[in-house]
Amino acid sequence: MLESKPSKLDIMTAHERVRPYINRTPVLSSEYLNEKTGAEVFFKCENLQKIGAFKARGGINAALSLDKELAKNGICTHSSGNHAQAVALAAKMLNTKAYIVMPENAPLPKVNGVKELEAELIFCEPTLEARENGVKEIIARTQAFFIHPFDNYDVIAGQATAAKELLEEYPDLDVILAPVGGGGLLSGTGLSAKYFSKKAKVYGCEPEGAADAILSFKSGKIENAPFINTIADGLLTKLSDKTLSIIKETVTDIFTVSDDEILAAMKLVFERLKVVIEPSAAVPFAVLLKQKDLFNGKKVGIIFSGGNVDLSKITF
Amino acid sequence: MLESKPSKLDIMTAHERVRPYINRTPVLSSEYLNEKTGAEVFFKCENLQKIGAFKARGGINAALSLDKELAKNGICTHSSGNHAQAVALAAKMLNTKAYIVMPENAPLPKVNGVKELEAELIFCEPTLEARENGVKEIIARTQAFFIHPFDNYDVIAGQATAAKELLEEYPDLDVILAPVGGGGLLSGTGLSAKYFSKKAKVYGCEPEGAADAILSFKSGKIENAPFINTIADGLLTKLSDKTLSIIKETVTDIFTVSDDEILAAMKLVFERLKVVIEPSAAVPFAVLLKQKDLFNGKKVGIIFSGGNVDLSKITF
Repeated sequence: MLESKPSKLDIMTAHERVRPYINRTPVLSSEYLNEKTGAEVFFKCENLQKIGAFKARGGINAALSLDKELAKNGICTHSSGNHAQAVALAAKMLNTKAYIVMPENAPLPKVNGVKELEAELIFCEPTLEARENGVKEIIARTQAFFIHPFDNYDVIAGQATAAKELLEEYPDLDVILAPVGGGGLLSGTGLSAKYFSKKAKVYGCEPEGAADAILSFKSGKIENAPFINTIADGLLTKLSDKTLSIIKETVTDIFTVSDDEILAAMKLVFERLKVVIEPSAAVPFAVLLKQKDLFNGKKVGIIFSGGNVDLSKITF
Repeated sequence: MLESKPSKLDIMTAHERVRPYINRTPVLSSEYLNEKTGAEVFFKCENLQKIGAFKARGGINAALSLDKELAKNGICTHSSGNHAQAVALAAKMLNTKAYIVMPENAPLPKVNGVKELEAELIFCEPTLEARENGVKEIIARTQAFFIHPFDNYDVIAGQATAAKELLEEYPDLDVILAPVGGGGLLSGTGLSAKYFSKKAKVYGCEPEGAADAILSFKSGKIENAPFINTIADGLLTKLSDKTLSIIKETVTDIFTVSDDEILAAMKLVFERLKVVIEPSAAVPFAVLLKQKDLFNGKKVGIIFSGGNVDLSKITF
């Protein structure tokens, strides 16, 4: 278990640890989308990761980093979906129990994913307070070990392995764009760019309807979003101390996009790259489309964070 | 240009010829779908191929096999979409013109794909006769060289490279399932299984609403479908002499599925594999779901033939 910000070696170790249990996800590109954006774009498909999201990396790394004694009463977390599935999967691997607190409005495919992995599921109101209280009750009842969805250095080191793989295949990227909710993926991506690239700048990409990270990045302390209203259901949470501190150090800037821009980007991805992504995963590509001038002529890596979308709710 | 049924060496040569211009498409799998089917399933993602379909392989191979003199007045074809895009792309590579006859009811993404590749597009009524007449007029007017969508040994050799790649990665497949329309992909798959596998049996998969191949396979001569009515718009054509002859020799059986079964399979693929496939591409997986008992415990390769679907027309 890491007690401080992951070092280069920590991320390399995390990668070796999770490698047997995760997919080496493919990187896609499209001449049409290159022409459309004026950039050369490489899409890292974490939607094709185990459980359909990059969260498998962090959840598995954190669980496998636990002392056996700590994991023996089970592991628990709160999550709107993808981290929940990651912890449930990790518990299966460790042959221990998983207890998951999920907001009652979590998307159905994410809820079903957790159920299939045989975790104990506890629904709560969709507020951070209710989620945290739910976890406290579980810990009191079961002594399960809590794996925070992002305010956890082992989770961050695990998420960092996505950008590490991307940079192994495309070492000369100028830019990497990643979505930001709690900041686990973005801080991990920032660290990997710092450690494994000579020049890649990292940008965070956030929905306008959950714009806390851009405010926190500018003020330097954790801020609330002015309002929460977005289809990007994986990006509703705010940053934590650990993620903000790494983001301040490793990220160049944060941009926001509207839900309409997210949906338009999502449609282009379905049509042109032929992969299914969830709204949260479309946010960085929406940023690229919006900020074309800034990235013109650059080699741009984009992390497709996940593909767990309720298709009955999407109309193109 | 091949004058007879492709040999093992012909397919190996075709593969070397097209390799620089096509994607080595990824192979996906899902524990959930393995459990659901009772088989171990490997999905070869030709929906992630250039132009969004395996047809890039055959079209490019046939075009690159042409003597320069033959291609100098352009190349032409008739196609409901994916082969049209393949020929248009190949013409661009050869720096010559492409003339494409398309039925007026071809799906919009396929029409747009051809337009973007700067081919000359001629619409016709959605009958084989109208398509063939359209091509005759083009040849009379331009002396362009006709590349048939499947009744062409170079096209068949090109399509065979998809199963060849799949068998390179999974040499111990027991079964390969491929969709069948005109039979270019199925005959190529049959040849690759014969040449590059010790044991893989190949099955053709066809929509009930265009069930000519199953009849032709059983009678041994080319039959018409009893009726044409299916969402699998890429599988409406009937077999040709060249494809039927190879299919009789290399394919074990042909199964049909209904449109409801195709849509259900397509939905599962979107939800679980997170890739976008067109209805025609879902047909083999629909067959696997329907014929579970036959394939129980087997290692099954499935070729996702393409991903060019008008998403506004699909409701899950």
